[in-house]
Amino acid sequence: MPLASTLISSVGIVTPQTAHFAAPLTLKSGAVLPAYDLVFETYGTLNADRSNAILVCHALSGNHHVAGWHAATDKNPGWWDNLIGPGKPIDTGRFFVIGVNNLGGCHGSTGPVSIDPQTGHAFGSRFPLVTVEDWVASQARLADTLDISRFAAIIGGSLGGMQVLQWSIAYPERVRHCLTIASAPKLTAQNIAFNDVARQAILTDPDFHAGDYYAHHTYPRRGLRLARMLGHITYLSDDVMGSKFGRILRAGAFNYGYDVEFEIESYLRYQGDKFADSFDANTYLLMTKALDYFDPTQHQAEPNLSAALQPAVADFLIISFTTDWRFAPERSREIVQALLDNERNVSYAEIVSNHGHDAFLMHDPHYHALIRAYMERVTT
Amino acid sequence: MPLASTLISSVGIVTPQTAHFAAPLTLKSGAVLPAYDLVFETYGTLNADRSNAILVCHALSGNHHVAGWHAATDKNPGWWDNLIGPGKPIDTGRFFVIGVNNLGGCHGSTGPVSIDPQTGHAFGSRFPLVTVEDWVASQARLADTLDISRFAAIIGGSLGGMQVLQWSIAYPERVRHCLTIASAPKLTAQNIAFNDVARQAILTDPDFHAGDYYAHHTYPRRGLRLARMLGHITYLSDDVMGSKFGRILRAGAFNYGYDVEFEIESYLRYQGDKFADSFDANTYLLMTKALDYFDPTQHQAEPNLSAALQPAVADFLIISFTTDWRFAPERSREIVQALLDNERNVSYAEIVSNHGHDAFLMHDPHYHALIRAYMERVTT
Repeated sequence: MPLASTLISSVGIVTPQTAHFAAPLTLKSGAVLPAYDLVFETYGTLNADRSNAILVCHALSGNHHVAGWHAATDKNPGWWDNLIGPGKPIDTGRFFVIGVNNLGGCHGSTGPVSIDPQTGHAFGSRFPLVTVEDWVASQARLADTLDISRFAAIIGGSLGGMQVLQWSIAYPERVRHCLTIASAPKLTAQNIAFNDVARQAILTDPDFHAGDYYAHHTYPRRGLRLARMLGHITYLSDDVMGSKFGRILRAGAFNYGYDVEFEIESYLRYQGDKFADSFDANTYLLMTKALDYFDPTQHQAEPNLSAALQPAVADFLIISFTTDWRFAPERSREIVQALLDNERNVSYAEIVSNHGHDAFLMHDPHYHALIRAYMERVTT
Repeated sequence: MPLASTLISSVGIVTPQTAHFAAPLTLKSGAVLPAYDLVFETYGTLNADRSNAILVCHALSGNHHVAGWHAATDKNPGWWDNLIGPGKPIDTGRFFVIGVNNLGGCHGSTGPVSIDPQTGHAFGSRFPLVTVEDWVASQARLADTLDISRFAAIIGGSLGGMQVLQWSIAYPERVRHCLTIASAPKLTAQNIAFNDVARQAILTDPDFHAGDYYAHHTYPRRGLRLARMLGHITYLSDDVMGSKFGRILRAGAFNYGYDVEFEIESYLRYQGDKFADSFDANTYLLMTKALDYFDPTQHQAEPNLSAALQPAVADFLIISFTTDWRFAPERSREIVQALLDNERNVSYAEIVSNHGHDAFLMHDPHYHALIRAYMERVTT
């Protein structure tokens, strides 16, 4: 439960809203979603010019609950509450901030767990694969609904950063500032490899039932747990794992068995269990596919990121973290170089942090000061 | 099937031998193996002084079949055939080379898949966990059997390198030269984390049956496949994955489903399948535990590798590979520093290679020339 003081420095209690879209959405795959819902939250007030809106794009396991609390009894606030709120780096006293759960999600937007009105049962395996391009198209429709023709800024970390890039390419006139954090222009073979092991863990779980586990009243818990354990290794740096856990034994001595011996095992299994109890396996699968698919250069004979980013007109702030090996600083520098090739305004910072990829979610004074300084020059 | 020319430059057709040990072996865990077999191969001829023997210690999924061919119809020779043979860097014209399958293995030495004479059934879950220290103790007994009081050299890569280190500490007078390749003095938290995800994949496979799957006439194939897919990512460098597979699509276009789309997925799944068809899951589990447990500093109040290596008197050749992120060069340098602290003779080389951890198994001219040069100065 938040302390009164925490509530004061946060956006406080927030209530999600749902936007229903009755017009069909043709996805990149060719599949058509006849209608869909997007659940979202807003913080701050949209000004009279409707020029102070900021869209927050979420990553693999994120959602629309970016800041504040749903109830005074909540254990934790929204996932980017340390960054967004009154007087915070993204100041809800100045900006109108929108968090949205992506299509295919499992927190209220239409996804595999939603009831398919055509059958009366959960979509399950019949929910189509969606892409970053589809998400951005659906987010643009949400902006239309809210009568926001141009965002002051769009911000996202990791997979969220890919959505920011896609916004700058697909709707260049609709965003003034792009904040791309701990991201990459496209996945490497190693990134895809980790995703595929995670997917295979879920797909080969006997409880998966080809994605229709809801109808079987079961759940591929084992697979999702493994996927999350593996993912977690890639979110942390070797450094921080070493300093936090090292080779510390839980019971002080080896027990020569397969129960938890090292603290790192206990931590990882706990993270896997917690996630498997709260996330949908089909959503996890499709989010990893959206990651794999994203590649602004995919339709070029010779991949050329500079050419792919040529349509972008926004100003950019690109941030990376020194120990992030999932999306290492050199991946951010690829984006920076491509923007410079197009003579765009781009600021780049490589933050010294030992927290690996997860650093983008954490409170780091330099990182937050940088975003604060950047946002202070964004007019509303 | 080997070409005639390949057979000539190799040790040729070899036949494994089995040594039976009737005396009980007390393991580090306190468990006792009443009796056991070790399967081994030898190449070259033991000289009259019995002073030209070389022991090869294998890594996670290796075995005693180090060089040569079991039959002219074999698809592949032993796993280190490119290094060991007549005229090769480890020249069987000069040296008598021994490959041994470690205790707990699944290629002939006593392990979980062996029949427990007390029950008439496979050991399964009743096979005790073994450590690097136990392996080295059992290898020393094999040396006794072969009347080899002192090895000219002991060589190993990865987990094999840990056995080399342990030999130098536990039996310093029994080895003149230690070759430790792509290894580390002990695992990091991240190394253990990867191992634990692999183990959890096997342990939570419904076909695992607490390790007694033999009795259930089943096999935790899904789990072992995932474990190997994951392991494989850590054996390759990001570099080589990128240059070999990149983002190449198998069918040239996305199919928006969970079947293989990227070449890297095809490769990994193939590797997982192949391994799951040929290796024992209990052995895999126990080998990863031996890796986790090894730590020459574990009984010190303040971990000090220099103090731990103080007993060693052998000369050392330590080799690492630039893109190995499983056991990175800095891990080898820890060993080098500890040996220098003890004023031991140590040569160190960091080989430029883009093959990651797997480089230790591959033919690289610089790497092999280095071992050749080192071995040429080893007297017999």
